[in-house]
Amino acid sequence: MSESNDVIVQLSEEESLELLATRHFGRLVVRREDDMDLFPLNYLVHEGEIYFRTAEGSKLFTLSLNHDVLFEADTVDRDEDSAWSVVVKGTARVLSSTAEIAEADELPLKPWLPTLKYNYVVVTPKTVSGRRFHLGEEPERY
Amino acid sequence: MSESNDVIVQLSEEESLELLATRHFGRLVVRREDDMDLFPLNYLVHEGEIYFRTAEGSKLFTLSLNHDVLFEADTVDRDEDSAWSVVVKGTARVLSSTAEIAEADELPLKPWLPTLKYNYVVVTPKTVSGRRFHLGEEPERY
Repeated sequence: MSESNDVIVQLSEEESLELLATRHFGRLVVRREDDMDLFPLNYLVHEGEIYFRTAEGSKLFTLSLNHDVLFEADTVDRDEDSAWSVVVKGTARVLSSTAEIAEADELPLKPWLPTLKYNYVVVTPKTVSGRRFHLGEEPERY
Repeated sequence: MSESNDVIVQLSEEESLELLATRHFGRLVVRREDDMDLFPLNYLVHEGEIYFRTAEGSKLFTLSLNHDVLFEADTVDRDEDSAWSVVVKGTARVLSSTAEIAEADELPLKPWLPTLKYNYVVVTPKTVSGRRFHLGEEPERY
């Protein structure tokens, strides 16, 4: 591959999920009929799915209307001149069975905000795509 | 206000734009008829608008189909136990006039990837909403 081909490297689904699991802060994007919204949140990857907790509110309300979501996490390392971004497209559901909630309660998923968050949400990926970027100066245009 | 009300602070549009201007790495979310997508990118805030540059590709293609976009940037500071996120809803357009491009060429907007990026895109906000989070332990649930 030429140098310019290496600037953006597409990662496999497995690599992407591994990177995602190294981070705990990401962004959930939801859509309504004529609108989109984005919520930053802390999460945990567990057995290939993305777990987070949420209080009652607009995030939960929107999820109840439309399960199709996008989830993203990324990292920029200016010292290493590298960055990556993983985008998950999938469906979100609120855990409702006692058994599922009990299992989720065992996960090391601590909310970062000092508010009570009773609801577990799980995003099940349909597609996982990741890209790694090698940062650098733009070549001369002229 | 009680302590729990202070956990999430809604910021004014002006404060939000100021915070956005302190960062240079954000995420553009676009929507197609049945799909959404997210692109990480580096940007510059200039006179209340968000500028970035892009090569030809799916990002530009999608913008040409649907101008309604969402843009987000955030910062988490675990040492300070604080975080913020600013979400912009607006419209994106590709600069086409020679005068506009010449003006944009004067901005300190350097691509982070060593690829040629001839197209300037400007996001004009319709709404700017920002939130500041004070991180902390979840209170006892029982």
